[in-house]
Amino acid sequence: MRNFNENTITHAVLERISGASDPRIRQVSEALVRHLHAFVREVRPTQKEWEFGIDFLTRTGHMCDDKRQEFILLSDTLGVSMLVDAINHPVPEGATETTVLGPFFVQAAPAKQNGDDISGSMEGEPMLVTGSVSSVDGRPLAGATVDVWHSDDDGYYDVQQLDKIGDLAMRARFHTDANGRFHFWSIKPAPYPIPHDGPVGEMLEVQGRHPWRPAHVHFMISAPGFEQLVTHVFVAGDKYLDSDVVFGVKDSLIREFAHRTPGTAPDGRAMDTDYFHLNYDFGLKLAASDARAA
Amino acid sequence: MRNFNENTITHAVLERISGASDPRIRQVSEALVRHLHAFVREVRPTQKEWEFGIDFLTRTGHMCDDKRQEFILLSDTLGVSMLVDAINHPVPEGATETTVLGPFFVQAAPAKQNGDDISGSMEGEPMLVTGSVSSVDGRPLAGATVDVWHSDDDGYYDVQQLDKIGDLAMRARFHTDANGRFHFWSIKPAPYPIPHDGPVGEMLEVQGRHPWRPAHVHFMISAPGFEQLVTHVFVAGDKYLDSDVVFGVKDSLIREFAHRTPGTAPDGRAMDTDYFHLNYDFGLKLAASDARAA
Repeated sequence: MRNFNENTITHAVLERISGASDPRIRQVSEALVRHLHAFVREVRPTQKEWEFGIDFLTRTGHMCDDKRQEFILLSDTLGVSMLVDAINHPVPEGATETTVLGPFFVQAAPAKQNGDDISGSMEGEPMLVTGSVSSVDGRPLAGATVDVWHSDDDGYYDVQQLDKIGDLAMRARFHTDANGRFHFWSIKPAPYPIPHDGPVGEMLEVQGRHPWRPAHVHFMISAPGFEQLVTHVFVAGDKYLDSDVVFGVKDSLIREFAHRTPGTAPDGRAMDTDYFHLNYDFGLKLAASDARAA
Repeated sequence: MRNFNENTITHAVLERISGASDPRIRQVSEALVRHLHAFVREVRPTQKEWEFGIDFLTRTGHMCDDKRQEFILLSDTLGVSMLVDAINHPVPEGATETTVLGPFFVQAAPAKQNGDDISGSMEGEPMLVTGSVSSVDGRPLAGATVDVWHSDDDGYYDVQQLDKIGDLAMRARFHTDANGRFHFWSIKPAPYPIPHDGPVGEMLEVQGRHPWRPAHVHFMISAPGFEQLVTHVFVAGDKYLDSDVVFGVKDSLIREFAHRTPGTAPDGRAMDTDYFHLNYDFGLKLAASDARAA
């Protein structure tokens, strides 16, 4: 195989990878080559533009370390993460919708008891979160694992300011009680820009886009026999609900973080200041038997 | 804009980037989103496969440093580099065909005189290279800059073994004489595998491909008013001519590296050993007036 021109090169590459022994690798490789070549043929990059592309990808890779994942940000901001999410999570009646995981999840969140305040040393407006976990047919799920994490009222997560605050905060793992319920106290999160001092920030800038996400609380909920749910609940009225930089907002995930005045809170706590109350009832669907989704 | 499903997400991203002020950035961004989403919709990656893709790109970025460019290798092995080359270099009658630059070009090659031996401390079979540079209408170009570089007879370039050999070798910059001619001595290059101890090597392995390139000498030739020529001349008979891992071979770039016995070489040098002789006459085309190609 020699003498390729801009049309025959694609066939040549496809022929070369047709010997891949794993059918899934062959399928993904072939689709990648077809779509990548079609993109190049459409935009007809100059050599300098190709060099810019190589450099952009290289800088994106160099930006990645154990605290920053610039390729996930790139996938998020190009809508790829939400597309993959939509493909993998069709939502049956009664199940909570999913959204992106985001880059601030931590595997080993501190275990807490229902009713605990997880705000640590952070200051902000008090927030009570109550909720339940059930199967799509309404059966309460006791003992379900509920991971929560959210930003402070400046829009920063604990892991972005560990130097300053010393310990994880606004992040915890709960288990639902016998009635499938959980509740905790923290501080109300704020909207925030995704990290935009790298290549992805440059891209947003030249594409004429802002880097903001509307305020939200992350939830990751697991129970034996059910598909793990990764989602957020967004603060109703946030100015970025219609322009989330990662395209993650769904109407069913927006809730009033209701403003309450001093008095006895729904969990019995005596409050001498104003606070906000969020309640969300989550529905889990049965785990898929499809091995590929595992 | 909210509530995107696997079909509406693409439109939402396109709408978001439609405000890019630079029309070329808008065009490339829109095409990227359309083709990238079409790829994802076709292969329907699981979350785990998406994570693998993020990790593959991250590792490819981490492999890049001042001596290694893994994203160029990825572009080369997926046929993208040759596609970009074909798009940018239509070849008129009389002009030499182009091929990939490759990762081993060095900006400041040692200046040498015609007739010099550029093999430095490297041992191998002697090779005489003679050639000419002219315009497509046959006019010899005096004073043209001719950069050459090639591997040793184990298939390694100088920059891959600087620790061992101490200095650049098998690499030089010449200028053509009054008749548009140049010549030099070196050692005959060998076929070699591209660096395959990184993510690109993994990809080739699972795609069932070998990492080899047929033996060749690189040329980069410039003359005022003419388009810079980046090409190789390949050794006729090489076993990898039909399966070059980067798809770079064109018939017009293959030449006999003719085996010669002891005696007086074409440049007058007295040879007491066997040697090889390569001659290639290069044709340059006029520089494009298209500013985008600059």
